[in-house]
Amino acid sequence: MARMKKRISILGSTGSVGSQTLDVIRQFPDEFEVVGLSAGKNIGKLAKQVEEFAPRYFSSIDDSMSEIGSAKRLSITDLATHPEIDFVMHATAGFDGLPLACAALREGKAVGLSNKESIVMAGAHLKRIADDNGGTILPIDSEPSALWQCVIGEKSRPKRYIITASGGAFRDKTPDELANVTPEEALNHPTWTMGKKITIDSATLMNKAFEVMETASLFDSSFDEIDVVIHRQSIVHSLVEMSDGSIKAQLSHHDMRHPIQFALFYPERRLNDDLPTFDLLEASELTFEAMDPSKYPCFDLAMKYARIGGTYNAVLVGADEAAVDLFLARKIRFTDIAHEIKTTVKAHDNQLDFTVEDAIKAAQWAYDTTYTRHITR
Amino acid sequence: MARMKKRISILGSTGSVGSQTLDVIRQFPDEFEVVGLSAGKNIGKLAKQVEEFAPRYFSSIDDSMSEIGSAKRLSITDLATHPEIDFVMHATAGFDGLPLACAALREGKAVGLSNKESIVMAGAHLKRIADDNGGTILPIDSEPSALWQCVIGEKSRPKRYIITASGGAFRDKTPDELANVTPEEALNHPTWTMGKKITIDSATLMNKAFEVMETASLFDSSFDEIDVVIHRQSIVHSLVEMSDGSIKAQLSHHDMRHPIQFALFYPERRLNDDLPTFDLLEASELTFEAMDPSKYPCFDLAMKYARIGGTYNAVLVGADEAAVDLFLARKIRFTDIAHEIKTTVKAHDNQLDFTVEDAIKAAQWAYDTTYTRHITR
Repeated sequence: MARMKKRISILGSTGSVGSQTLDVIRQFPDEFEVVGLSAGKNIGKLAKQVEEFAPRYFSSIDDSMSEIGSAKRLSITDLATHPEIDFVMHATAGFDGLPLACAALREGKAVGLSNKESIVMAGAHLKRIADDNGGTILPIDSEPSALWQCVIGEKSRPKRYIITASGGAFRDKTPDELANVTPEEALNHPTWTMGKKITIDSATLMNKAFEVMETASLFDSSFDEIDVVIHRQSIVHSLVEMSDGSIKAQLSHHDMRHPIQFALFYPERRLNDDLPTFDLLEASELTFEAMDPSKYPCFDLAMKYARIGGTYNAVLVGADEAAVDLFLARKIRFTDIAHEIKTTVKAHDNQLDFTVEDAIKAAQWAYDTTYTRHITR
Repeated sequence: MARMKKRISILGSTGSVGSQTLDVIRQFPDEFEVVGLSAGKNIGKLAKQVEEFAPRYFSSIDDSMSEIGSAKRLSITDLATHPEIDFVMHATAGFDGLPLACAALREGKAVGLSNKESIVMAGAHLKRIADDNGGTILPIDSEPSALWQCVIGEKSRPKRYIITASGGAFRDKTPDELANVTPEEALNHPTWTMGKKITIDSATLMNKAFEVMETASLFDSSFDEIDVVIHRQSIVHSLVEMSDGSIKAQLSHHDMRHPIQFALFYPERRLNDDLPTFDLLEASELTFEAMDPSKYPCFDLAMKYARIGGTYNAVLVGADEAAVDLFLARKIRFTDIAHEIKTTVKAHDNQLDFTVEDAIKAAQWAYDTTYTRHITR
């Protein structure tokens, strides 16, 4: 008997997570049907993807083409909400991913959420929209995916979520050395191959602060129940301590196709010969160290304001996005990133009670405020 | 509303696992009722336990007392099968635990199976008896308990079970040095505090062979799907590789109360302040090494015959029990243990198709054959 294929759209298909999602799908032609692909400006790569996967629809910022082969142009919002789609892989970067996440969940889609900005900015809203409309949020980040895999089937509330961090490109630099690092150095992540923004966020550990916020939302936990430890090998992706003190950990090669495939097939798992198998003997040792807060001022700053909550979360996202852009454009130093975010967040008039629109506005305000401080100077 | 207490009997209550089971139960007076306690010859310790936990029944090999306080004497089989009992903690040592396991499962009990000899000798029989009578086998060993915790909630068949081994007391000795080790040295386990028999079996890795056999039975897996790795810290108790290559691991302090409590409360978990919490930062590193087969001839020997199956399994159990007794009695050297087991197993007339009674007879034969070779010499 023919099995129904899962009908998928990918928002951000030419990016790192989008491309790797297609790598996984390529291995399972009988399981998935790519209905829509959405890219930004990389129309060349998009055209190749469309040729290979023959989706009915595409979307792109570059509006030079109204059709690619037999694929028709739709808006990106259409690709997040189309009735012919079951699963939306939301892999765009940046805070404007939030309305797309809301739209997809409002239509009851299963949403593979790689755009963590959405859940950081408005986690409670996203969860409510999902609950009210039969939508599902499936985390794609390796750390929340690991936590999720560890709690599957557990009947009792865990005691502690332990998120691992590689420590990023500069884990062995002193605070003094950090002042003069270049974007090229910052983009040289010790273990993971990822997009630019997230690689810089890994070096500042801002990414880890966002994951703590994401974890708190996804698992209804308080920040006090979430720890971060430095784990250089990026093999243990996170751990959960159960109420009885037993700890469960999830391990694999640092390859994003692992959490992507897990979300695509959940609750089942499938053999994928294309994925690297992790050999415990090859790794030989797994180490865990405390995080040195003096090296990672972004983390403490973000957690301080995240504990207050409200639109501060969105401001952290927007200000960080601008600060990273400024650093990549060589307009500020690496060590200025935390300072820039702090300046913006301190100037923000926080709303504890806020709508999704308020969050988007706050993030945009924070981005503009941070970015223009340097462009107009 | 009053919650029904789980009514428990402990077979082997004065032993290591039995006593630790009572340690756990002591923390949860509202959850458990100790209905029966059964000991061997340690009537003094049993009397103290009876005084504290006030069971209605007791059993002991020492038949000098027909009552202890208000507790009445029953046979150990009665304590495995009594209608007032829900959960039987089967923590006796040795191959004569098999008929008790069968009897308890035949009465539909939940059986916490610390007596791994039972499942090694007649795993398929135990599972069939459990299935036919609504009984449940809950492993108490830390390794199968870890595997069990890792597969909870998983919908797809795992690819590989990875059992960890500390390597035992002699993991850093050369094969030559092993010839002259004493029972006292063998009993000095690097991480775990356990009974004598299992501590010697840890040094020979015979214990690990039995766990592989236990795992194959419990999880319906083939020996080819089970690996053993040396993990010196005894923190990661085992790991499961899922079909998609994701690995889940279970970690905790090497304290038997962890797997005991997990089985007692399954499928729930409870906070127990009396149990040590494991701090990842305190451990700092976890290492994994290949096992050196030349150091552990018992392991290879056992696996060779376990692959054939039948009553060989029971003979391995019986011969090992005798060989360990002989070593503890200083009648053979540590390095003779494997040789003694091999001599006996080679003399055995294997039955591939066998009953529980055949298995018990084969184990008894193997014990007697091995032991008397030295007593009569």
